[in-house]
Amino acid sequence: MPAMKVSELGEFGLIDLIHASISEGKSFARAPWQEVLVGIGDDAAAWQGSDSIQLATTDTLVQDVHFDLSIISWEELGWKALAVSLSDIAAMGGIPGYALVSLALPGELQVEHIDRFARAMVDLAAESGTAIIGGNLAASPNVVITVTVIGRSTGKTILRRSTASPCDQIAVTGYLGSSAAGLAMLKKNIVLDRETSDILRRAHFRPVPRLKEGQILAEEGVRTAIDISDGLVADLDHICALSAVSARIRIEELPVHPVVRVNFPDRQGLALCGGEDYELLFTADEATMARVRLALDCPVTVIGEITEEKTATRVTLVDGRGNPVPYRKGGWEHFKNGVLKTGFE
Amino acid sequence: MPAMKVSELGEFGLIDLIHASISEGKSFARAPWQEVLVGIGDDAAAWQGSDSIQLATTDTLVQDVHFDLSIISWEELGWKALAVSLSDIAAMGGIPGYALVSLALPGELQVEHIDRFARAMVDLAAESGTAIIGGNLAASPNVVITVTVIGRSTGKTILRRSTASPCDQIAVTGYLGSSAAGLAMLKKNIVLDRETSDILRRAHFRPVPRLKEGQILAEEGVRTAIDISDGLVADLDHICALSAVSARIRIEELPVHPVVRVNFPDRQGLALCGGEDYELLFTADEATMARVRLALDCPVTVIGEITEEKTATRVTLVDGRGNPVPYRKGGWEHFKNGVLKTGFE
Repeated sequence: MPAMKVSELGEFGLIDLIHASISEGKSFARAPWQEVLVGIGDDAAAWQGSDSIQLATTDTLVQDVHFDLSIISWEELGWKALAVSLSDIAAMGGIPGYALVSLALPGELQVEHIDRFARAMVDLAAESGTAIIGGNLAASPNVVITVTVIGRSTGKTILRRSTASPCDQIAVTGYLGSSAAGLAMLKKNIVLDRETSDILRRAHFRPVPRLKEGQILAEEGVRTAIDISDGLVADLDHICALSAVSARIRIEELPVHPVVRVNFPDRQGLALCGGEDYELLFTADEATMARVRLALDCPVTVIGEITEEKTATRVTLVDGRGNPVPYRKGGWEHFKNGVLKTGFE
Repeated sequence: MPAMKVSELGEFGLIDLIHASISEGKSFARAPWQEVLVGIGDDAAAWQGSDSIQLATTDTLVQDVHFDLSIISWEELGWKALAVSLSDIAAMGGIPGYALVSLALPGELQVEHIDRFARAMVDLAAESGTAIIGGNLAASPNVVITVTVIGRSTGKTILRRSTASPCDQIAVTGYLGSSAAGLAMLKKNIVLDRETSDILRRAHFRPVPRLKEGQILAEEGVRTAIDISDGLVADLDHICALSAVSARIRIEELPVHPVVRVNFPDRQGLALCGGEDYELLFTADEATMARVRLALDCPVTVIGEITEEKTATRVTLVDGRGNPVPYRKGGWEHFKNGVLKTGFE
């Protein structure tokens, strides 16, 4: 293997490398591989349990990479650390069951902070029907939080990244770009009125995982979804790569919250590449999409369509006349960014 | 809440605090608490699945707290990171099924290191029948590895910490103190012959989780076990606290590997407080213990007995004549130690 740094290979290259080791290992393993339905590469792993499909996902937040203790409160951190993993269960159309929380913490931290952190996490656990049943505590120079959530499917189907088909419509729940706008507001000290500021702060720090919505998608016959954590274009690219399709997004259709539209000139950039909205991005044929729009309480916006696979590019952006719009590749890839995301540059 | 640092409250105080929040949260939760058999405080969490008891555990290794990259190889780190979580499944008498691996890594790391790390972890996964089905990658200034393992019981029983009874014998598998001796050898540059050095290095860096042994214990009717990660006295203290009993250890009975006995004058200190042996410490009545000794292939040593609860002290050490031996409280508690464990001081 030629000498190369992790930052040069990038997050997805590294995932491929580890995936390759695991695939080689399968051949001589007596592991329960035959039960595995979805391994590395989707929002959550899935395997066939005795009476339902079981789901498990894990997510890590690292101080000064994913959060900045000078702007996030401990309550917000406790909420968000669980929310990001629940969002992965939502993106599979699943029901969360149990959570394990691993905290690596500096000894100098005030206990009161951890108390507030735990209470906020317990609030979301209670709201979402998740039992926190275990975890781990360790000393560490910086705060690192890993939350694992174990869940199950509602019925016989789960939402995957690999099942999009040409002619599927592409839709999203809620609004895009609000989380990145909130972070930009805080990092760049943009002063906005109290109500606007609260909306944006909550969008970034207290995302509400779309659990009920994910379950309804699965029940209504949707087969393909992902949660928007890396950014719309980046996450749609994951779907295209795994489904061997391409996609076209009509940028004028992107749902942007009024407070973002009014206050952020680059609202389209935020919506396309901002990330951390934890909305669901999903694809389905027109009839299914019509049912879904009736069944869901939240905003649902069709923003484009899946197309046959193109060799050149997977995600194309078009304007109101259908003309291609160039864009710089964005989204949140670990190691290549390497610093706290500051928005959408 | 009075101002207090995490290091002042200590690991177990912090666990109690978080546990209290979760217990309060239960009352208004619609979480599946009614299925939970074992929550926070045992080696793994357990809940009633539709055809077997389900188990889940998570463990974190932090660079410069749990491992020192100047002495551990990446292969050893990959092996050990999975082994410590599998050991928790072993201590419940369970069968591992699936693992999720969260890696927080500096971007400057060489990819080749992660490749070696992953291959060694996959080797242990294959040997132990564990499928690595997911995980997470994140950038971080230091290496932090969290491994979650999901498993199940072999039958209707699991091994707990809370079920020891007065008159139970106390036994351990294998040898005690070898891991701490290995670490002391490496940290203090103690020069030993190649074979001795290899045995001690492996004891510290390549522990073999006692999965088969844990399963046999459960099948033979043992109800109480813990894996020795914090140290014999500290881990026995956990059993005593949760079972409301005390314990007496005959220090002359402690099983110490010949290479430790010969080369380490404080072999008893290593065996009592060294930690990270990942052997099973278990209790059972005499008849069950006799069956277990026949059924297990590895060394099994009875080292003492459970007694009625005493108010003063939970774990008493006695010499060959039954006289009490004083000892300094040791074991590996996070935050209070705060630095890489250097052995048994």
